[in-house]
Amino acid sequence: MENFTFYSPTRFEFGHEAEKKTGELIRMFGGTKVLLHYGGGSIRQNGIYGKVIAALTAADVQFAELGGVVPNPRSGLVYQGIEKVRKEGIDFILAVGGGSVIDSAKAIAAGAKYDGDFLDFYRGKAKIADAIPIGTVLTIAAAGSEGSPNSVITDEENKVKKGAMSDFLRPKFSVMNPEFTCSLPPYQTAAGATDIFIHVCERYFSNTKEVSITDRLCESVMKTIVYETPRVLRDPDNYEARANIMWAGMIAHNNICGVGRTQDWASHHIEHELSAQYDVTHGAGLAVIVPAWMKYVLPIHPEKFVPFATEVWGVPLDMVNPIETAMRGIERFEAFLKQIGMPSTFSDIGAKKSDIPTMVERLFSKKETEGNYVKLSRDDVTKIYESVADQ
Amino acid sequence: MENFTFYSPTRFEFGHEAEKKTGELIRMFGGTKVLLHYGGGSIRQNGIYGKVIAALTAADVQFAELGGVVPNPRSGLVYQGIEKVRKEGIDFILAVGGGSVIDSAKAIAAGAKYDGDFLDFYRGKAKIADAIPIGTVLTIAAAGSEGSPNSVITDEENKVKKGAMSDFLRPKFSVMNPEFTCSLPPYQTAAGATDIFIHVCERYFSNTKEVSITDRLCESVMKTIVYETPRVLRDPDNYEARANIMWAGMIAHNNICGVGRTQDWASHHIEHELSAQYDVTHGAGLAVIVPAWMKYVLPIHPEKFVPFATEVWGVPLDMVNPIETAMRGIERFEAFLKQIGMPSTFSDIGAKKSDIPTMVERLFSKKETEGNYVKLSRDDVTKIYESVADQ
Repeated sequence: MENFTFYSPTRFEFGHEAEKKTGELIRMFGGTKVLLHYGGGSIRQNGIYGKVIAALTAADVQFAELGGVVPNPRSGLVYQGIEKVRKEGIDFILAVGGGSVIDSAKAIAAGAKYDGDFLDFYRGKAKIADAIPIGTVLTIAAAGSEGSPNSVITDEENKVKKGAMSDFLRPKFSVMNPEFTCSLPPYQTAAGATDIFIHVCERYFSNTKEVSITDRLCESVMKTIVYETPRVLRDPDNYEARANIMWAGMIAHNNICGVGRTQDWASHHIEHELSAQYDVTHGAGLAVIVPAWMKYVLPIHPEKFVPFATEVWGVPLDMVNPIETAMRGIERFEAFLKQIGMPSTFSDIGAKKSDIPTMVERLFSKKETEGNYVKLSRDDVTKIYESVADQ
Repeated sequence: MENFTFYSPTRFEFGHEAEKKTGELIRMFGGTKVLLHYGGGSIRQNGIYGKVIAALTAADVQFAELGGVVPNPRSGLVYQGIEKVRKEGIDFILAVGGGSVIDSAKAIAAGAKYDGDFLDFYRGKAKIADAIPIGTVLTIAAAGSEGSPNSVITDEENKVKKGAMSDFLRPKFSVMNPEFTCSLPPYQTAAGATDIFIHVCERYFSNTKEVSITDRLCESVMKTIVYETPRVLRDPDNYEARANIMWAGMIAHNNICGVGRTQDWASHHIEHELSAQYDVTHGAGLAVIVPAWMKYVLPIHPEKFVPFATEVWGVPLDMVNPIETAMRGIERFEAFLKQIGMPSTFSDIGAKKSDIPTMVERLFSKKETEGNYVKLSRDDVTKIYESVADQ
């Protein structure tokens, strides 16, 4: 096990009507004038907007609004948010939405306290040293941004998706009412579940030896997703299944499943190029990339694929031929992704083989290798893309 | 799943030489004059005392000292601590030790900010509304107090062990260096592992339906303890095994394994009467009580004992006779406790059958039932004690 710091100070209010506490939570963490940040019109249609406004009004919290966050959130709106925060004396940001809205709120929170261009943080040119406190009302179980120190933003000018990370970006609180996710269409629900599963994979596939507690925690989250996702797709209003997926999404990404080990993240970075290029739903892009990554790296480094197969997928261990066991695990994972309606090839998500060189070029613009479980070269990543590029 | 709040803001610094950060952590959380609180002489013998002093000195942190905490920490020393804190203008308490030292520090921290008798908090007569911030340097993996809002103190006058709980008692930081636990004798190591396992049991045995994510997390901690404890007893200096047990101890008790469900805690309360009466090591007392509790409640409410057997102990499921499966699980648990050297009867821990009525009387002095998974009467608890009372 490697040395680590674990710090997850977010206060989570989970369950039926949890949103009623939003106003008092903002006050608890010192907010007086709030920027209410959200996406398109869906929170107005499904009534969440009205419930949050009621909670703010009940606690006598003043607010300004900035809607319009899109999936794969853009730098343009972040600049607008930063300007608004400064002009209107905002001291707290409330993100109402999924990972994109929360990530956009985090970017505004850090940017508003910085004199330079906020993208410096995402380009690795500056370190976040302060941020306006943020809170979230989560409406999509997927990104885990409600409990994480991470934010991913698409730099519109350069068409690249980049991440930043800082304890200053951890939400002060997150309100999680599983009912808010019931109106999500099946495809978005499945893509969210895929994202959660793969947040754990990125941590599970590690070369660090002897982290049995974290391995077991990772498996428990993956097993939960495998059990609950088909249930929720059959019965979208199943509160219990929604609740388990929603909480699993937080656990998958607040790093309790990742401490003490070198993590991988190759698949996320390989997928970021896809979603920056084609605006693919992140979880759907991962569903295409991760099995391809697995099949590519399995022969090079099979070790962790064996417990992945036996513990997560219940494949019996073949002691004589453990690689066979590992392959059965990957196949069951692929079958699961198909079962829940996730894409598996470039044509399913509108990606094109001819763009592979551009994506590889962007991915390796500032590094020589990608990932840690197996260190991938340009050639390796090209082959991974090509293995799923049917058009 | 039930509604819940999860809030675990402690900063954990884990690994080799983590104690070197102690001084800067105290400063990070605003401490200027520290009460260094510890137990007997062991931290001087094993060098931990010197390392902590060096870290405080390096960060130019002033401190006063109060040693002498004993296992099952006593109210008398807490009163002394409160007086010292007030007299010397202490603004931060650093607990260097195991659960007893940390619990004693928590009692001092809350008591120093309260005008009445600190035991009011433990007797349910007052609610903790403030506390001096505390930090910990953990030397025993067991109680989980390093990340929990709980404290248990023995009221010396009345010979009762009572608990208090408040977010104000959560440590600001905990320093966890697994090497510090290597010098622990085998019996204490095994008792600590037992305590960790049973902290999870108390949460696992719940009537709340549909909390699959938390069930799976509980199983992952229990499996880790079952795997790592025999390793560490064979090889006490095995850093990796010590590290996994130490981190499992935190996860077992910061409530990530307990949210969204009604918890049991009957076994802990039944054991508290034992350790208040005989000053038994808490984990050893639990090793006697918990299997007895399990065998007593199994016929009344077998449901959770089946996954306990199949998932934690790898017992094959007998669909025709699941009670048989459940029994095999309890038997494997008993065999495990025996393997790691834990006691199983009253005579093993110096307890006496003749004291059962007194212990039952104390336990039920202010309630009519004990526990939640099965609500136990005086008669039930008497039978549980009697089933292991061989003298």
